[in-house]
Amino acid sequence: MRLDLAYDGTDFSGWAVQKDLRTVQGEVTRILSLLTQANVELFSAGRTDAGVHANGQVVHFDVTPRQADLLRGAERINRALPEDIRVRRLSQAPDGFDARFSALWRRYTYRICDDSTRMDPLRRRQILWHPHVLDLGAMNAAAQGLLGLHDFAAFCKPRDFGSTIRTLEQLTWHRDGDFCVMTIQAEAFCHSMVRSIVGAMIPVGDGRKPSSWPSEILAARERNVGLTVQPAYALTLEEVGYPPDDQLAQRQLVTKATRRLADACD
Amino acid sequence: MRLDLAYDGTDFSGWAVQKDLRTVQGEVTRILSLLTQANVELFSAGRTDAGVHANGQVVHFDVTPRQADLLRGAERINRALPEDIRVRRLSQAPDGFDARFSALWRRYTYRICDDSTRMDPLRRRQILWHPHVLDLGAMNAAAQGLLGLHDFAAFCKPRDFGSTIRTLEQLTWHRDGDFCVMTIQAEAFCHSMVRSIVGAMIPVGDGRKPSSWPSEILAARERNVGLTVQPAYALTLEEVGYPPDDQLAQRQLVTKATRRLADACD
Repeated sequence: MRLDLAYDGTDFSGWAVQKDLRTVQGEVTRILSLLTQANVELFSAGRTDAGVHANGQVVHFDVTPRQADLLRGAERINRALPEDIRVRRLSQAPDGFDARFSALWRRYTYRICDDSTRMDPLRRRQILWHPHVLDLGAMNAAAQGLLGLHDFAAFCKPRDFGSTIRTLEQLTWHRDGDFCVMTIQAEAFCHSMVRSIVGAMIPVGDGRKPSSWPSEILAARERNVGLTVQPAYALTLEEVGYPPDDQLAQRQLVTKATRRLADACD
Repeated sequence: MRLDLAYDGTDFSGWAVQKDLRTVQGEVTRILSLLTQANVELFSAGRTDAGVHANGQVVHFDVTPRQADLLRGAERINRALPEDIRVRRLSQAPDGFDARFSALWRRYTYRICDDSTRMDPLRRRQILWHPHVLDLGAMNAAAQGLLGLHDFAAFCKPRDFGSTIRTLEQLTWHRDGDFCVMTIQAEAFCHSMVRSIVGAMIPVGDGRKPSSWPSEILAARERNVGLTVQPAYALTLEEVGYPPDDQLAQRQLVTKATRRLADACD
């Protein structure tokens, strides 16, 4: 089965199950196991960090047809789930579908309000306030230097294994009414990469650094002491892209071969 | 001075100061008094109930020019205020301006989501979830019977004094993306009137009552035992309308005469 989820990350210690902590995976696993009377195991497209929200997280799990019948649709699951998680859609996953390994891209947004008089107090758990006006033109110019295939080691939290080479497909800033939105898309991201990129963009936006600064950090390939990883609560996993159903089985052959090489982070 | 405010009503016991309770008036009074080093007294267009939000609450207060200088603008006040209140604008009030008595109309919105799979978990503190699909056509038909000048006693929380006669200028429902929004406007509302009207509309929307039901309740002029006052957290004070500046002084003469007769509720 495929499950599309939205959640308010505020009160979760992220997606992935951790002992004695409230996590999205933990809550959804508990409810699905309860409803299907089975031990359900969930696989997600993105293991979002503590505080990160989702509008279009994608998950898959395997159940027997009889167990699937017991779920009786998205509305029923929503009645059982806590209010900060909503099922957007419950559907039969096509053959060969793997929420994580079939994904072609992940798209995230990051929200910043640079004018306190336009800040919506009801959205303060999802929008970062920045005390200086941001020049989105300068930030979009800076973004150009990060697009494409690069070693993003300078923007990744160090891990013992795994490549930090990624292809950045989209990185744009625009104003959406009262706040600024960064849209960022890649096949996959390494850990804290999006929030580190935001951290390289903000000083460009408020004039403390030139538009070339993010590219310079990238080229150095190591953490820059002047770079601040920005807070998680302004980050939202918006959408995950998959190939057409008839290409899933073919892609599965490729992904099976690369799965053992996969990073622990998406 | 005139102060335009937005707030998240979730953690407030309403607008009006109450001993030992956290209120919007209490918090704003405390900060303005601190910044101006004076005892500031606030007058607002709407004394919102506990849990009710505001996007365009209007307030006035009197300070000397020297005290006004100490405020140094909306951004400065926002830095001092708690995050769930934001100043939208701080401006010199025109001659004769009274946030409450100069107001020509108040406009509120009420938000309901009737499809759990479209509920935004990040907006659950501002949107009521209703488990049945709402027919906004039927609700808009029902609204017609409430428009205009009526005695709204059936929709008002009983008080010892004051008229329950009001003129309802606007009452419409529309879908805004994933949820339904009721927009309601009147010169003034009596206590719990908006949430009682929503309570009369929902059974029409989900087919339990005919479109004539709200009009029948109105005509009866007394509380209907089948009428549920709906939760405060889905209600927002959106905007308050005032006459042009040059008409304020004239209006002030009229309002001064009626002020002693005014209700305790707006």
